[in-house]
Amino acid sequence: MSAIQNNVESASAAYSAEFTKGHLALPPAKKYLVVTCMDARIDPAQAFGIELGEAHVIRNAGASALDALRSIVISEQLLGTTEIVLVKHTGCGMLTFANDAAYDIVDKNLGAEALGELKDRKLDFLAFPDLEQAVKDDIEFLKGTRLVPETVTLSGWIYEVETGKTRRVV
Amino acid sequence: MSAIQNNVESASAAYSAEFTKGHLALPPAKKYLVVTCMDARIDPAQAFGIELGEAHVIRNAGASALDALRSIVISEQLLGTTEIVLVKHTGCGMLTFANDAAYDIVDKNLGAEALGELKDRKLDFLAFPDLEQAVKDDIEFLKGTRLVPETVTLSGWIYEVETGKTRRVV
Repeated sequence: MSAIQNNVESASAAYSAEFTKGHLALPPAKKYLVVTCMDARIDPAQAFGIELGEAHVIRNAGASALDALRSIVISEQLLGTTEIVLVKHTGCGMLTFANDAAYDIVDKNLGAEALGELKDRKLDFLAFPDLEQAVKDDIEFLKGTRLVPETVTLSGWIYEVETGKTRRVV
Repeated sequence: MSAIQNNVESASAAYSAEFTKGHLALPPAKKYLVVTCMDARIDPAQAFGIELGEAHVIRNAGASALDALRSIVISEQLLGTTEIVLVKHTGCGMLTFANDAAYDIVDKNLGAEALGELKDRKLDFLAFPDLEQAVKDDIEFLKGTRLVPETVTLSGWIYEVETGKTRRVV
């Protein structure tokens, strides 16, 4: 067992000992979903006010709506959510590199076969150079795709890792 | 403003008023990442013992390692994580339908053009019929891809939404 694995076990023992929410239903009680970044400095439940059972939380590098699309369609079409809250954040790693640079790093660190797999899978790292524009672009993407009906409520936000504040962009 | 949007603003005001973690660095302090489901009944920070700043948290429908691959590569190759904790859970929505059924629902709810977009994007919903096997399969996928080097520590777990417990599978 690694130290991390030990930590999961001890945290789980403490959490489950006090757990009283075993009755919650599968569909989110407040019928919304949050798309945000995987960044270690974001605690969506605390920062965005989500109680257990209320909302789906989708997280990926950069809070990409495109990358989240499979999960969004499942959330809306199979589990009844009707609102999307998309939150990117200041200091995001996706602001710090371009796709080509990331490909070069994979080539250098993992070798030509890994780079080949990256290309075979057509993996786009979906980096972005401008934070506010990226929020707007993702909301436009969600407005544009036929997989998100017009009845779904959309909003785009920026979480500030320096202050803990979340402010609305669109 | 919707009720959900008002809730984000009021939660943010309260959270930022007490916020003292504005100094945290971009790379996760404990150099690991968690892949888990978007399910509303999971609070990864509490259930798996993650303090702010310690770990990347990737969430998607079903905690799919394949769907998370872009984020995993970024986490490892650009932000220095060296361990993956993958956690699926009991009562997962992905256990309740097959790909074809989900396609039919999109067709019925959103129409033929949406179904066409789904097919154009080659969106696979990545449902699974057996929970433990799905955890094992995802760990095998991570072992098999050249985009995750052999030096990365892997473990697969199941979170029980009924009890709040997380138990190791592999």
